[in-house]
Amino acid sequence: MSAWKAYVSSQRERYLAELKELVRIPSISALPEHSGDVVKAAEWVAQRLIQAGAENCVVLPTSGHPAVYADWLHAGDDQPTILIYGHFDVQPVDPLELWETPPFEPEVRDERLYGRGASDDKGSMLTAILGMEAVLKSEGKLPVNVKFCIEGEEEIGSPDMDAFLAAEKERFACDLVINADGGLWDEDRAAILLGLRGLCDIEVTVTGPKSDLHSGLHGGVLNNPIEALANLIATMRHADGSIAVAGFYDDVVELTAEQREAINLIPRDDDKLKSELGISEFFGEPGYNSRERAWIRPTLELNGIWGGFQGKGTKTVIPSAAHAKFTCRLVADQEPKKVQQLVIDHIRKHTPPGVKVEIKASGSYAFPYLMSPDHSGNQLAAAILTELFDGNEPFQSYVGGSIPILTYFRQHLGADTVSYGWGCGDENLHAPNEFYRLKNFYRGIEGYGEILTRLKDWQPA
Amino acid sequence: MSAWKAYVSSQRERYLAELKELVRIPSISALPEHSGDVVKAAEWVAQRLIQAGAENCVVLPTSGHPAVYADWLHAGDDQPTILIYGHFDVQPVDPLELWETPPFEPEVRDERLYGRGASDDKGSMLTAILGMEAVLKSEGKLPVNVKFCIEGEEEIGSPDMDAFLAAEKERFACDLVINADGGLWDEDRAAILLGLRGLCDIEVTVTGPKSDLHSGLHGGVLNNPIEALANLIATMRHADGSIAVAGFYDDVVELTAEQREAINLIPRDDDKLKSELGISEFFGEPGYNSRERAWIRPTLELNGIWGGFQGKGTKTVIPSAAHAKFTCRLVADQEPKKVQQLVIDHIRKHTPPGVKVEIKASGSYAFPYLMSPDHSGNQLAAAILTELFDGNEPFQSYVGGSIPILTYFRQHLGADTVSYGWGCGDENLHAPNEFYRLKNFYRGIEGYGEILTRLKDWQPA
Repeated sequence: MSAWKAYVSSQRERYLAELKELVRIPSISALPEHSGDVVKAAEWVAQRLIQAGAENCVVLPTSGHPAVYADWLHAGDDQPTILIYGHFDVQPVDPLELWETPPFEPEVRDERLYGRGASDDKGSMLTAILGMEAVLKSEGKLPVNVKFCIEGEEEIGSPDMDAFLAAEKERFACDLVINADGGLWDEDRAAILLGLRGLCDIEVTVTGPKSDLHSGLHGGVLNNPIEALANLIATMRHADGSIAVAGFYDDVVELTAEQREAINLIPRDDDKLKSELGISEFFGEPGYNSRERAWIRPTLELNGIWGGFQGKGTKTVIPSAAHAKFTCRLVADQEPKKVQQLVIDHIRKHTPPGVKVEIKASGSYAFPYLMSPDHSGNQLAAAILTELFDGNEPFQSYVGGSIPILTYFRQHLGADTVSYGWGCGDENLHAPNEFYRLKNFYRGIEGYGEILTRLKDWQPA
Repeated sequence: MSAWKAYVSSQRERYLAELKELVRIPSISALPEHSGDVVKAAEWVAQRLIQAGAENCVVLPTSGHPAVYADWLHAGDDQPTILIYGHFDVQPVDPLELWETPPFEPEVRDERLYGRGASDDKGSMLTAILGMEAVLKSEGKLPVNVKFCIEGEEEIGSPDMDAFLAAEKERFACDLVINADGGLWDEDRAAILLGLRGLCDIEVTVTGPKSDLHSGLHGGVLNNPIEALANLIATMRHADGSIAVAGFYDDVVELTAEQREAINLIPRDDDKLKSELGISEFFGEPGYNSRERAWIRPTLELNGIWGGFQGKGTKTVIPSAAHAKFTCRLVADQEPKKVQQLVIDHIRKHTPPGVKVEIKASGSYAFPYLMSPDHSGNQLAAAILTELFDGNEPFQSYVGGSIPILTYFRQHLGADTVSYGWGCGDENLHAPNEFYRLKNFYRGIEGYGEILTRLKDWQPA
């Protein structure tokens, strides 16, 4: 056993104590009253990085919550620079009454650490710091250059990280990002994340009469804005389930047969999924199964609709206006702004007679993300994860949602991201009784020691 | 000049003073804190009926606000019994700051009496009592038997009058109803109301997944309830504007060519209407103009829709459910319950895949109302109104809304209703600065004296 692995084995008690210490800080980024706690968590991480041997450590302000930078850059110019990403902010805890033990009083039960943020992402984030520390303390140096970008806004969608990374691109310059906010497939099997969907949004307001009208006086005479909006929505999808917006699929990258095969190697239980969702049947784009529709195909979804009377009983009004919110989930190489414009064009073209349409958008976008399983970073991660998980090869997975920061890393730093974290989907992330499996916490520390060691002489693919 | 007309001419000052007295009572039926005032107005009306010579006067309780009954039944069994209808309750007054003088401090300006309820319906209701009084005081008797039904719930939709009239059908038994809550076409021309639309309602809930879902995780996989609801709504109307619910128009009585012609004799300014409503074009059932669509054709209107996220910004949710409220405006001989069932059948038949539909209804209905212009009551009223308005024949008009009590009179008493009131549509009914033209107040008193006199020997057509 190498020296650093022996070190890792010897430090488990301390590692757990430290993770508990961090979990005790209620760093809820969504709640203004916890802003000070988010700063406290940033300072804790900074101190821990310094203690681990990182240098140039700073808590950097953003327009929102701060981010922590640190580095160790003595591996030489011929060695790659690896940026490790994670976050120290956590989700809110309500409903509090459903927690078996208080969310910020971490407790070990059945080899699991219970507490808000234990899994997402304080535990996995810490594995990266501790893995680096183990190698550095044992060997006196790292084989590669390492930087850290640990943020405090992930749970609110990283609203300031785009501008922050754009402004700090030299400080964070790197060859590859390792994302400690990734996750396992299940407790005994890892996953290599290859793609995420992007996002654009549109809010449409259909206006008819200039004020609400009495349906007795005027019903039948004019186009009802609610009905006009419904008709407009009905034009957006073909009966077969595919999106009817012209050009919507034009830039979609079709996965190779091998890539689709890899997706379908992962066990899938459609009946169980239907039962979990509470639906009688799936509905969506033909030619793709439920997993493919969620992972590798774009969609347009209604997120909200409103107009007129919503109270109890009857109010015979023709409302002046009706509103709907849409988002499109996008896949590579769809450009969010371009797809948004296609949808706007569709709405303009299909605006029903006698009403006006007004379109708003948040102005924020997420780019879809796609990486090849053959990317050398993914291949290295896959090799290590296979060893760490007793020969179980990691699945090739995709996520239907977006992690905007991966796009910012690519856009501002020119670096791809390997997702490499240790939480499991069943660990009550974002829910009461979040927990983290300690066996994967310790496995993760070893995983980080291993990948930092084996990235020596790594070249971007 | 007959004795009773001379009497009417001599009493104007007292008539005005009495109307002011009644307007001072803030009998707002919609506001529980004014319940006592509604009772006060009922008692005022009862006293005034007794003073006018009516007999058997009682303030009758209902499940809500009371109604006043009185009669004068000494014309003999061979003479018809006429039931006069009106109401003493009024609309709320907000926004109070827009009133030039306080709503319950009546004031005459420019030969108009300003005050809440002056026009709707205290003024017109009083013309009937005063008209009867003039004949009775001058002649010592009436040529016909007269009953009064003056209610206190009209402005809240007469919720208790159905049950009340059903229970009191003997007391209110009559041959013809004269409705003092009717109105003029404009200040110089009357209108004979021939039809009103009925109403039925439906609330539909489309349920997809058993809880709200993250559109990133599941978007594209299942039918989105908002979209399913929009698609369902889109099936309800043909592109040409007609309602697509099978059987919807089956029971509609087509008016005769003469009746339609009479409607179109009334001046109509479509450009002005469009500008008032703030719409660029009309939309509705082909083959009918804007007035016909509102007056004599049925429609199905969306009154409200809601589901998912309605706040600021973006929330990428697929909601568990979406909801819509509809009402149908009906014309003779459509039966509200039957049409409601047709719509329900349509919804069941067109329910999109993968979602469930749940249907609710208020359980209250309004029947459409239709009378022929040739009805002898209408013909008598038209003759008198032509004389009273300097030779201007009244228009034959319809109302797109419903007045449920007319249906109850027909259902429980077997009597048709002649609308015979003196308010104008521009008198700020239901709005600040309601007023009543005094010339039509005095004209109305004469009109009631005249019609009671000329109903002698009247026979149901």
